[in-house]
Amino acid sequence: MPNPLLDDRGLSFILYDVLDAGALARWPHFADHGRETFDAWIDLCRRFARDVLFPSYRPLDAEPPVLRDGAVQVHPLLREIWPRLRELGVISAARPFDAGGQQLPATIALAANLYLQAGNCAAYGFAGLTSGAAHLVEAFGSPALRDRWLAPMHEGACTGTMALTEPQAGSSLADVRVRATPAGEHFLLSGSKIFISGGDHDLTPNVVHMVLARVDGAPPGTKGVSLFLVPKLRPTADGGLEPNDVRVPGLIHKIGWRGLPSVILALGESGDCRGWLVGEPGRGLAHMFQMMNEARIMIGANGVATASVAYLESLAYAQERPQGRPLTDRDPLSPQVPIVGHADVRRMLLRQKAIVEGGLALVLLAALQADRASHAPSPEARHRAQLLLDLLTPVAKTFPAEKGFESNALALQIHGGYGYSSEYLVEAWLRDQKLNSIHEGTTGIQGLDLLGRKVVAEGGGALRVLGEEIEAACARADRAGVDPAWTAGLRGATAEVGALTMELAGRGLAGDPGAMLLHSSDFLELFSTVVVAWTWMLQAAAAREGLSAGRGSPDLLHGKLAAAAYWLRFELPRIGPLVAACREGEDSYARARPEWF
Amino acid sequence: MPNPLLDDRGLSFILYDVLDAGALARWPHFADHGRETFDAWIDLCRRFARDVLFPSYRPLDAEPPVLRDGAVQVHPLLREIWPRLRELGVISAARPFDAGGQQLPATIALAANLYLQAGNCAAYGFAGLTSGAAHLVEAFGSPALRDRWLAPMHEGACTGTMALTEPQAGSSLADVRVRATPAGEHFLLSGSKIFISGGDHDLTPNVVHMVLARVDGAPPGTKGVSLFLVPKLRPTADGGLEPNDVRVPGLIHKIGWRGLPSVILALGESGDCRGWLVGEPGRGLAHMFQMMNEARIMIGANGVATASVAYLESLAYAQERPQGRPLTDRDPLSPQVPIVGHADVRRMLLRQKAIVEGGLALVLLAALQADRASHAPSPEARHRAQLLLDLLTPVAKTFPAEKGFESNALALQIHGGYGYSSEYLVEAWLRDQKLNSIHEGTTGIQGLDLLGRKVVAEGGGALRVLGEEIEAACARADRAGVDPAWTAGLRGATAEVGALTMELAGRGLAGDPGAMLLHSSDFLELFSTVVVAWTWMLQAAAAREGLSAGRGSPDLLHGKLAAAAYWLRFELPRIGPLVAACREGEDSYARARPEWF
Repeated sequence: MPNPLLDDRGLSFILYDVLDAGALARWPHFADHGRETFDAWIDLCRRFARDVLFPSYRPLDAEPPVLRDGAVQVHPLLREIWPRLRELGVISAARPFDAGGQQLPATIALAANLYLQAGNCAAYGFAGLTSGAAHLVEAFGSPALRDRWLAPMHEGACTGTMALTEPQAGSSLADVRVRATPAGEHFLLSGSKIFISGGDHDLTPNVVHMVLARVDGAPPGTKGVSLFLVPKLRPTADGGLEPNDVRVPGLIHKIGWRGLPSVILALGESGDCRGWLVGEPGRGLAHMFQMMNEARIMIGANGVATASVAYLESLAYAQERPQGRPLTDRDPLSPQVPIVGHADVRRMLLRQKAIVEGGLALVLLAALQADRASHAPSPEARHRAQLLLDLLTPVAKTFPAEKGFESNALALQIHGGYGYSSEYLVEAWLRDQKLNSIHEGTTGIQGLDLLGRKVVAEGGGALRVLGEEIEAACARADRAGVDPAWTAGLRGATAEVGALTMELAGRGLAGDPGAMLLHSSDFLELFSTVVVAWTWMLQAAAAREGLSAGRGSPDLLHGKLAAAAYWLRFELPRIGPLVAACREGEDSYARARPEWF
Repeated sequence: MPNPLLDDRGLSFILYDVLDAGALARWPHFADHGRETFDAWIDLCRRFARDVLFPSYRPLDAEPPVLRDGAVQVHPLLREIWPRLRELGVISAARPFDAGGQQLPATIALAANLYLQAGNCAAYGFAGLTSGAAHLVEAFGSPALRDRWLAPMHEGACTGTMALTEPQAGSSLADVRVRATPAGEHFLLSGSKIFISGGDHDLTPNVVHMVLARVDGAPPGTKGVSLFLVPKLRPTADGGLEPNDVRVPGLIHKIGWRGLPSVILALGESGDCRGWLVGEPGRGLAHMFQMMNEARIMIGANGVATASVAYLESLAYAQERPQGRPLTDRDPLSPQVPIVGHADVRRMLLRQKAIVEGGLALVLLAALQADRASHAPSPEARHRAQLLLDLLTPVAKTFPAEKGFESNALALQIHGGYGYSSEYLVEAWLRDQKLNSIHEGTTGIQGLDLLGRKVVAEGGGALRVLGEEIEAACARADRAGVDPAWTAGLRGATAEVGALTMELAGRGLAGDPGAMLLHSSDFLELFSTVVVAWTWMLQAAAAREGLSAGRGSPDLLHGKLAAAAYWLRFELPRIGPLVAACREGEDSYARARPEWF
């Protein structure tokens, strides 16, 4: 049986039994929808992922794009796939009807995209980037820009990119140097961008770059950064297109996501690269954060998808591969058992399951907040959801990347020596996963964002909302008959994190941001562990509800309880020493001088 | 400056200031040696590693061996390297003078080999395997076999392999099926082996396989397994060589160690594959364990070496790459700082340093026990050292592999987007490292070995020796003026692990090995954390001694104290929840049924 990419029943359980995503259709914006249309869309993408994308995964990984005569050529299979992805309507699924979209909730779009990402993250990448870039144009572009570019982007007649990074400005976007010189209704851009995913290819004639640049005379730092739309081919007066002085001097040889080109862009080498301002001058970074935040959730989803496909691969292997005997069986003539029979293999499987399905619930929860923030009936509910979404974003971006990498390594480990060969796919997903802790803000950046901004925003308002949500989950679990030790553990951990946050914030308020943020990565790790424990409490509650009502597959529900037990009893207590280190201000690396290494 | 592979001063500090390896020369067996000859040997290998091996690393990784007309062709550079490795005398450095060796301590040989492994693990692999195979012949071979094979193996005129694994018998060696049929003074072997490193190549005409097989009529299980020497070319009556019916039907495409071929061997397809019994029939696995245990320490050393070279690469990058500003610097016009200036980057560097140098001390400590076990003057000291060596072997094999993988991932992470490209080497070392948790017994196997055998051996005798050694280290640290909180922490953790072991052993004695071994991998992790804390306590003590005496580089010694602080204050407390889970018998994966996944 081919790899299913995601567990269909498990996804449905989280969407409907855990998160009640069906209720979204009660709001006016989604009134044309219901569980039937949701499921139809997910099923369409699922089948496309299984039938078209996944079979192309290995060839795309094996033969990455090439740069020939200044133009990038992608894998020939992609040229067959792209028209079908366009036709499917993936790019604009969550956009409004009047923008040519299907007005689906972000939650449902993400659920469907998970299959596409699990099937072939590189192929999906073109669509995801185009979607985010189009949303920037939709949100901040002038009417003229929207008229000109939205339709072809939504239709996939051209693709989009986000062009932020420069050789000297990666994590430090305040140091963006690309210049934009006013020239009438457009600007002339000059400078270099690097690591631009989908920055050139031969799938469509045109590529629309969303570029951060600095208008001549703008102040230094982030306040001087503006956002520009820079097409590869620009419109001519007679309605045609002409080249726009965007050159591709180099291609990065990535170790994963190998179907998606990552390029260096040289803008305006001949002094004639035209860009159009998007939104307000000096607000480029703020605008770009709309796309960045969407991309962070998308990266989180990618981490989940990449861990999921590998988990399911290792599960099938463990169920088939005979090796060894139970500890109590000393008879060498008895048949060997499938390795899933060994406790340590089940440990590796259950840890993967807990990471994959905890991560899945996490990214869906984040997407659900995005839907609520935009479309919930009351302003209070919208505000509350926005706070929670902002808080969850660094967690949803990082947890699947970091723990997903561990999960992918376990999938390889379960395959033993076979897993170490490129005849098996598990090693490729391990390579794919590693990018997710780097792009769209490294794990270090996410830790600073969470502790330095998100948990302290609005006087800790987001943290209060999270606490209320966790308490509601525990109350639901109590009602459903979940082990009271589990809810007590989560309530205790939540209180502990709240107290720790107050204490750290106090250090910041006292004028010592260094002391506050010293352990920001450790804080992100322990905070994520608690957030994922919340998702497992929700899943445990829904599983108990299902078992009590005799609804759903008992195997599925018992599996949910086993993974919840693992996370709540084994992983959650591991935050203790991390909390202590943060609180005590353990300072070994703060004090270490560069010359001591 | 090119990558130094290992920190020379740090190695010397551990060898002489921490472990007093110079004292080995006081024993009769090493009487011809002294620190000067030790250092001369290390320096010779170091220079070879830097000048010859490391420059060949990238080409060997880029162009793995090919199988052509049934024969494996390695990278052409290897054919230049091999004669020089032979000439250097790496294979037999630790063997006695009368076996053509230099009679160096295993500790010193390992220290020198670390450079070779860090420079190019695949190239070193041929020598390491040959060394281990020759030692098997030396220890268990008949005089005729020794006469015939030892000299060419020690000289590197032919290479050796260990041929254990079969498609159906990887971790489960009881299921070895290759048959050996008596045929006079030799046996006729038939069957398949897989994943045989160095199993064929064109560096030397001949390859000597040490093969596990089952003599016709032997009992099932491990007791029926014998050890055979099976050369690729076998001796003829007239003193020549002829092919031995050993075919290579396939080559594994490994994702790392790519210069070292891993092959499938087909033995006796034409009914004429001759093998010679080594040691006693039915004792094959016991004999092979000599090579396996040596190989496990060698794999541990490889894990350290692979993490070391990547750590030093990321350290140099962090000291050079400007990006961002200190938290308190809000002036975008101030110059960017090297990323080593950011606390989170120093966290990633210090964690790597603690893993690399803790692992380094660990594998050297293990090798030192091997020297003591063979050559210490008193039988008591030899026995004590053997107990400790047996106990340390699964730890020395696994810690560098598992934590080294995390360390290698951090080295990549520090490089940001650049680290994700194959233009930089950090990704290649990450691939290399992953093999170490698989070959020579997976991490799961090591956990069962540690908890199921080693800690309970001789009524817990090995554990008592370890406890005494740790106490001695703490006493030394107390005398040297190390922070008493650190020694208190380590003493407490050691007592906790002792108590836990007793409790788990009790479950085994009560007839429930499943309950005893349930968390064996977690036990291995927490046990390793304590053992590495011991190595850091020793290093902290030696650092304080050096600072008090005004001896050694203050930067080096302060760096040692910073890494010791990190391990003892941050990592060591993290065993708490693991100990609790083992004790409570947290049973989520014990109870999970295969159909629940």
